[in-house]
Amino acid sequence: MDNIGIDVDVDGLIKDIGKRVNKIRVSLEENRLDAFLAVKLRNVRYLTGKETGRVLITRDHAVLWVKDIYVELYSEFYSDKNYKIEVREYEKDVVKDFVNRLEIKRLGVENIAVIEYRKVSENIKGQLLPCSMVEKLRAVKSEYEIGLLRKAAEIAKKGMEKAYEVVDEGASEVDAVAEIEAEIRRQGSETPPFEGGMLLASGDSSSDIHAFAQNKKISSDSVTVVDLGGRYQGYHSDMTRTIRLGSIGKEQKEIFEFIENLELETIDEVHAGVKASEIHGIVEKKIKKKGYQFYHSTGHGVGLNIHEKPSIGSGSEDTIENNMVFTIEPGIYIPKRFGVRFEDTILLRKNKKENLTR
Amino acid sequence: MDNIGIDVDVDGLIKDIGKRVNKIRVSLEENRLDAFLAVKLRNVRYLTGKETGRVLITRDHAVLWVKDIYVELYSEFYSDKNYKIEVREYEKDVVKDFVNRLEIKRLGVENIAVIEYRKVSENIKGQLLPCSMVEKLRAVKSEYEIGLLRKAAEIAKKGMEKAYEVVDEGASEVDAVAEIEAEIRRQGSETPPFEGGMLLASGDSSSDIHAFAQNKKISSDSVTVVDLGGRYQGYHSDMTRTIRLGSIGKEQKEIFEFIENLELETIDEVHAGVKASEIHGIVEKKIKKKGYQFYHSTGHGVGLNIHEKPSIGSGSEDTIENNMVFTIEPGIYIPKRFGVRFEDTILLRKNKKENLTR
Repeated sequence: MDNIGIDVDVDGLIKDIGKRVNKIRVSLEENRLDAFLAVKLRNVRYLTGKETGRVLITRDHAVLWVKDIYVELYSEFYSDKNYKIEVREYEKDVVKDFVNRLEIKRLGVENIAVIEYRKVSENIKGQLLPCSMVEKLRAVKSEYEIGLLRKAAEIAKKGMEKAYEVVDEGASEVDAVAEIEAEIRRQGSETPPFEGGMLLASGDSSSDIHAFAQNKKISSDSVTVVDLGGRYQGYHSDMTRTIRLGSIGKEQKEIFEFIENLELETIDEVHAGVKASEIHGIVEKKIKKKGYQFYHSTGHGVGLNIHEKPSIGSGSEDTIENNMVFTIEPGIYIPKRFGVRFEDTILLRKNKKENLTR
Repeated sequence: MDNIGIDVDVDGLIKDIGKRVNKIRVSLEENRLDAFLAVKLRNVRYLTGKETGRVLITRDHAVLWVKDIYVELYSEFYSDKNYKIEVREYEKDVVKDFVNRLEIKRLGVENIAVIEYRKVSENIKGQLLPCSMVEKLRAVKSEYEIGLLRKAAEIAKKGMEKAYEVVDEGASEVDAVAEIEAEIRRQGSETPPFEGGMLLASGDSSSDIHAFAQNKKISSDSVTVVDLGGRYQGYHSDMTRTIRLGSIGKEQKEIFEFIENLELETIDEVHAGVKASEIHGIVEKKIKKKGYQFYHSTGHGVGLNIHEKPSIGSGSEDTIENNMVFTIEPGIYIPKRFGVRFEDTILLRKNKKENLTR
């Protein structure tokens, strides 16, 4: 269960929703669709401000079907606003019946699971077409969204300040995480970092990209990878620092400095119009030239999801555009020994980079 | 990113994995399939102990494809064990090539997104069939799993003790959540509760089933719904208490006692062989008879996912069996005024109920 949008700046949100729905209608035209049905919760939220139910956008209608308990509450939310969403009670077959009654011939639907897709397909008279139009829209942020992303980034920074305080020789990883996550909550994060909590991995565990905090003491003369973020009114932030304690070996020190510089250099390379896969290629090449492997992607978009478009990795078909918000996060991992990663959440705006987490 | 199984009781796990894979092979026979491909991370974990990659089970092979960084590490994990899983490096097309080389005619695959399903379908020579065989197996727990679920439940109980301490007049919801989640972490939970953190909703917010903690003070003469859990070696727990402060009104008090009793009565009704939808029907009927609506399901299975089979709600086709672990969580919510929910994680074993979170 998830936050459904309490405390939201309603005017900013409603204005945005109006624009988003209009963009969906442009996509309908372009794809010769009569309607689009969204069921993924974050996409429903993007189109309605509410993270529950199912939403159908046609050229004339925007209908949100929700549980009976929400119908009155949400109808009030949209009343007296310039932008109208019809709130209806969800019951079995209501969406199907509505779609069939409108005689929708070509219905766009999200990339849902195949069994559910087949069921919908059997139930509606028109043709069903899977598409990801909301995900594409979501990659480019509005000023309203940028404001929320900035706040989420501020929360992450406060969490990282706490990390530098508590990551110390003799502290347990688990206790450090408890304190950092509590700080992130106190700073106003609606949820703990990410889905599944922050990452904190000291010593040899830092070589595991996915390592979670363990019940072990942090040692001196080692590095600790700390990956965290916050969430503000639905919007995420993501940052990683590698914290070094005492004196670390020559190779470790060299990799540490190399990755810290590489992260900043890579941010410099980003500009509007560059292919995301090209950015990734540059990072991978530099890491390989240094004699190491690059085991993950260079970055990802950040918004209502912690990972969203653009994907900055090999094989990505995304292009970086102005008003995108994304991470840059190179890393080197030496199995069973140590790992180093630095990551920031970056805003590209008017072709200038703004580092939201520095 | 998620915990991939450090600190695991390797022997217990490996024994279980052997049995699980054998059960998949029985399902292959029953469904006249030549192989089954799992890609959902929790299902991959269930079949291999590792929460990453893709796994293919045929009558003779169990192959796990993972990133290059993991190949050596995981191969060591499975070596010298009775049960063998072949670990291979994942690269583009390797799974497809393997499937085609084995001349697999009927391949079972998980209920993946329709666009990905179509891609796989185009790439393999045999027939593709979506099925959910792992989810079905996962509903019934082994003794090894029950041990981990018990530990996860202990963590939840400690978290709830902390909740009774910190939920007090004048405390902010957000600060209370920060302290409770930190306690849950200190007690050894690998992640914060659930995906997205615990729920804590005081006063009128308690009427919102999904409400997250807000930056507001908890008042006396009101109720606070606290919904939390822990995770231990991948296994979850889930419990809810409604905490009352000061003196609450007559209706509120009556609903409070009604729901607390209803939860315990419902646990009594559960036995092996009963239909999950029937349990839900009884609860719904009692709440309606009292003059209220029941806005959500009665319960859900708990395991590697916080919500899994059996579903205890209307329309569920699941039957309760021995060695299932599930929640029972009736609630009544009066919009804009207050809500009451009580929830425990229950184990049914040898047709006796054990309340893991009391």
